[in-house]
Amino acid sequence: MIDPSKNSLSVCVLGLGLIGGSIMRDLAAADVEVFGYNRSAAGARGAEKDGFDVTTDLTAVLQRAEKAGALIVIAVPMHAVGVALDAINEHAPNCGITDVVSVKAAVYDLVRERGMGQRYVGGHPMAGTEYSGWMASKTGLFDGAAWAVAYDYALENPTSQKWMDVFGQVCAVAQICGSEIVPVTVGHHDESVARVSHLPHVLAEALAVIGDRGGTLAQSLAAGSFAGATRVAGTKPELVRAMCETNGPALVKTLDEIIPILQKAREDLETPTIKDLAEAGNNAYVRFGARASRPVMRINPGGPGWVDQLKQAESIGGRIEVM
Amino acid sequence: MIDPSKNSLSVCVLGLGLIGGSIMRDLAAADVEVFGYNRSAAGARGAEKDGFDVTTDLTAVLQRAEKAGALIVIAVPMHAVGVALDAINEHAPNCGITDVVSVKAAVYDLVRERGMGQRYVGGHPMAGTEYSGWMASKTGLFDGAAWAVAYDYALENPTSQKWMDVFGQVCAVAQICGSEIVPVTVGHHDESVARVSHLPHVLAEALAVIGDRGGTLAQSLAAGSFAGATRVAGTKPELVRAMCETNGPALVKTLDEIIPILQKAREDLETPTIKDLAEAGNNAYVRFGARASRPVMRINPGGPGWVDQLKQAESIGGRIEVM
Repeated sequence: MIDPSKNSLSVCVLGLGLIGGSIMRDLAAADVEVFGYNRSAAGARGAEKDGFDVTTDLTAVLQRAEKAGALIVIAVPMHAVGVALDAINEHAPNCGITDVVSVKAAVYDLVRERGMGQRYVGGHPMAGTEYSGWMASKTGLFDGAAWAVAYDYALENPTSQKWMDVFGQVCAVAQICGSEIVPVTVGHHDESVARVSHLPHVLAEALAVIGDRGGTLAQSLAAGSFAGATRVAGTKPELVRAMCETNGPALVKTLDEIIPILQKAREDLETPTIKDLAEAGNNAYVRFGARASRPVMRINPGGPGWVDQLKQAESIGGRIEVM
Repeated sequence: MIDPSKNSLSVCVLGLGLIGGSIMRDLAAADVEVFGYNRSAAGARGAEKDGFDVTTDLTAVLQRAEKAGALIVIAVPMHAVGVALDAINEHAPNCGITDVVSVKAAVYDLVRERGMGQRYVGGHPMAGTEYSGWMASKTGLFDGAAWAVAYDYALENPTSQKWMDVFGQVCAVAQICGSEIVPVTVGHHDESVARVSHLPHVLAEALAVIGDRGGTLAQSLAAGSFAGATRVAGTKPELVRAMCETNGPALVKTLDEIIPILQKAREDLETPTIKDLAEAGNNAYVRFGARASRPVMRINPGGPGWVDQLKQAESIGGRIEVM
């Protein structure tokens, strides 16, 4: 297990919304040195009022990060990631970098275009709520959640010490935040989250529309199944767009899978039966819920066959602990 | 407000699953005389162990209901409603009848075929979980929930004293269980629940299948949005079928609405944008959540214009209190 005090971990968070803010809170609660930047003065003020070390000066925060040898966590929306990387290149040329964006291939493309792959380890903590901004952040948000950590760079460069150092820092942050580290390649990650996160968002939006068309009576009769199924439609449209549009091809593939299932259900209902879907769906639900916990593998970065161990963990959705 | 002690309300519950069992618990907790029947001996034993007055003898329980002038609550699955009505006709020819089945037109058809309309007031408490059976039942399940009460019979027979008496009993049960009575016609009810209950079940089943196809990695990365959206896929397939298949035409209509929305999202994502759906869905969500509570109307059954008041309450999804 990584001991952050031994590694004198220092973390710089760019973007203090729900995710960035919650990471900052967890790290501070664990006495890790953490400081941050927020573009909007309102968000920064909120964090400052709560006793955190934040600024709206991007250049200054990156210069400080460089001096401290901090890990930089990019927690800004997808459309702002390129600008953040450029600023890091200019003002913090030696810092390790991670991010928390919900798509990984698009971010990795931006990183590689800039030749920053050796010091970047992509991440995606699988936690959130339908709320956003500093005010929605809280400690414990990531407790027990999966934290996807991308290892594509290591496939081609399994002995890069620089990359392994950053990998260790990212795993430390994830562990301090109480989550379980799940190794992923960016492609597998994006396919998986299209299924279990982006498609649910699309369905929630569509179902909200259908419910709304039912007017006040439908509203009045809506209960748990509707509330649960539409909760994430409360997410800001621009955040939903940022997630879905940057993962377009994988999401389109899941829509191409679910639309025929719904069309078949529609045809079957005229029989009238919905036996096939009701049974297949329930079986899938039971299989999904059957696993009590993620299997764990202990990884020694740089040790013999360590990247193969990452692949193996990914293939079973297992979590890793970094020795 | 109806005072059950004054009306010496007595209730006979047929079927002690999640809904029937929870009604029995709430009524008993309010000191209302309540007794019940369950087809399976296991369920009956569970209820008996918990101190309730139950039997597996349908004839006996109905004869007792007739003697006590009890309101009979049909809480069996849809496929068993016809048999229950026949038994009631034979052994409890004067009791008022209600039900808790999640479709109302199909039940009302069975009632009318048997000429039992004058003593039947359909109901549907809008609460539940993904679990079923006596062991899943609990007090407080209906707290604050809508309890749809169908008034179609009163449209043609607004002065039937017999029907109004049953209506009063059903409203008393709903109120004792802590729910809010929302008047509905069976057609409007079935259209509304297709939108806010049956379609969510179909989507949950389909999404569970899509997630399951992603294998263990998708499983490992699944978080709140997936869990919330698929929760009701944990419902027993035969219960989902009973709901959906008996409300086929209304449910097909909602599928014919949502499939084109998803197809458009799929086309838009190749642009790539999902702006229209993200905004429409969020607007719908906000509208849905904007109403703090159901508007209330006080109703005096048999009083001037009382059925028009029911219609008005239904048109705004309002709740009623019976004077």
